[in-house]
Amino acid sequence: MNDEIAGLIAGAPAPDAAAASAVRERAANVLRPAGALARLDDVAVWLAAWQRTATPAVRKPHLVVFAGDHGVTAEGVSAYPAEVTQAMLKALDEGVATATAMAATVGATVEVVDVGVGHPTGNIAREPALSDERFRECFERGRRAVVDCDLLVFGEMGIGNTTPAAAITSVLLNCPAEKCTGRGTGVDDAAFANKKLVVDTARARLRDAEPMEVLRELGGSELAAIAGATLEARLRSIPVVLDGFVVCASVAPLHALEARALEHCIAGHRSPEPGHGLLLELFGMRPLLDLEMRLGEGSGALAAVPLVKIAAAAVTDVATFQEWGVERSD
Amino acid sequence: MNDEIAGLIAGAPAPDAAAASAVRERAANVLRPAGALARLDDVAVWLAAWQRTATPAVRKPHLVVFAGDHGVTAEGVSAYPAEVTQAMLKALDEGVATATAMAATVGATVEVVDVGVGHPTGNIAREPALSDERFRECFERGRRAVVDCDLLVFGEMGIGNTTPAAAITSVLLNCPAEKCTGRGTGVDDAAFANKKLVVDTARARLRDAEPMEVLRELGGSELAAIAGATLEARLRSIPVVLDGFVVCASVAPLHALEARALEHCIAGHRSPEPGHGLLLELFGMRPLLDLEMRLGEGSGALAAVPLVKIAAAAVTDVATFQEWGVERSD
Repeated sequence: MNDEIAGLIAGAPAPDAAAASAVRERAANVLRPAGALARLDDVAVWLAAWQRTATPAVRKPHLVVFAGDHGVTAEGVSAYPAEVTQAMLKALDEGVATATAMAATVGATVEVVDVGVGHPTGNIAREPALSDERFRECFERGRRAVVDCDLLVFGEMGIGNTTPAAAITSVLLNCPAEKCTGRGTGVDDAAFANKKLVVDTARARLRDAEPMEVLRELGGSELAAIAGATLEARLRSIPVVLDGFVVCASVAPLHALEARALEHCIAGHRSPEPGHGLLLELFGMRPLLDLEMRLGEGSGALAAVPLVKIAAAAVTDVATFQEWGVERSD
Repeated sequence: MNDEIAGLIAGAPAPDAAAASAVRERAANVLRPAGALARLDDVAVWLAAWQRTATPAVRKPHLVVFAGDHGVTAEGVSAYPAEVTQAMLKALDEGVATATAMAATVGATVEVVDVGVGHPTGNIAREPALSDERFRECFERGRRAVVDCDLLVFGEMGIGNTTPAAAITSVLLNCPAEKCTGRGTGVDDAAFANKKLVVDTARARLRDAEPMEVLRELGGSELAAIAGATLEARLRSIPVVLDGFVVCASVAPLHALEARALEHCIAGHRSPEPGHGLLLELFGMRPLLDLEMRLGEGSGALAAVPLVKIAAAAVTDVATFQEWGVERSD
């Protein structure tokens, strides 16, 4: 699939340079000292480039949460039993989970996509997470989850899934488990040691694999779906706010294939998982938020959605010095 | 006024400990690993304590922008002529300024209060900013601007007002201008040198003054109003999100009188003005955002308002493990 996906990325639309420069210019001329909103102006320009309009706005943000189970939980890498994924899926479906509460607050619609709850992946400590066929199914399911909207957030739910995230990070960055593995939902010392052992074993096994092979072997159903969804958003020029460690690990193989694959993405937040910081550095992205959140479900990205909305309004809804008849001084 | 204000603070209500601990407990029991939202849970607890309810929410946030002119602009400390304050006041009034665009986006109502546009303060390089009488008037005007709402943001607009902010900071922290003075809206080297000279001169003059005296002598009409408004919010137990350098310098004299004066406040953001970082450290506050914004008008605090809203919803609108019939593992 590596060539196929690299081909899709190669044919994907470039950002809309005209929209971006129109917004850049307006941002420099609205009623405030040039550059006073700093990074928010950059966000408005990015949004314009991918929404392909000089009047960017966030009116219909959309969250898709992908859920799946992980065979690697058999290794005792998580503080929670795998059955909790099922309960959380139901909570997401019924709108009483953290991500759904946040989505309601920021005005985002929500879809929850079950790509493998009750159908755990292979245990990546010793076998591929997904067969070729199932990997492709999950990836395509992710692509189909992209609906018409002006800003996308992908989230994940899957007990044990920071282990695949650490394993992918470990392989792609050729980095020992010690440096890219965290405690996830908060495992004890013994489970943490197991987790690092799984990650190092996986790295040894996949050392020379192609990026999408790494994702298939070490990822999970929801990780594959997030990669597919993020690619589809790129092809359709829909901007994406990236969530935390698991989401960034899911899209890291796309980045490894071709850095342009993630040009339509910004980082919503930085989680305290050490691997997340490494991936953001690799992507060259500075997160909007750094609040030590470590939940997943898309929550870190959702918390950043209002900043994107504000950034756009602060360009489109503010008068320019010219319109206001004031001479600027800087 | 120092004794009078210290007396008011002494009689102010303590935070609602019962509401705070109810929210702390619920946050630890909703459907996510305990502590996964980290600082957002702390924000929810803080909000509960000052809204005095176990079901905190941000439904009617309110922004008050205080505007005034500064005699110190005669020293060439700003990149903009003082007349720009008037034009910006009109833009705020008509809803085409940055703060009003942001307020609309986050659902905040806005009041703009002119406490001295066209009536510049004394030039703090050589004379008191405000007379006793005018200081009290501005302070009381600020108090009267506090309306019934569930979250307050105070903003300021006044060409030249980072100079008073730096001067106040310099005196209260006994810190040379070099360390607590920045370029504000972006002055050139000559104006920046003037600005630091003004700050050091002011510090020498006010070295031994009482906190409210420092504010009267070195502040400005909008700074006095913000101090009054923040005190009033404290007396009425309304939570406040602090904006950037000028707002924090306005309330620093309250903190110098009695640290409890600012217990109802959180820091919305950190501006790149060096004095702002020093004040936040003094207050013991970690800002929610750090995006290099340096506008004022309440913009940095407004950008943080959605996080407060989200923090509350992520406790009140999420089911608990017990409600959901799942056993927790941590």
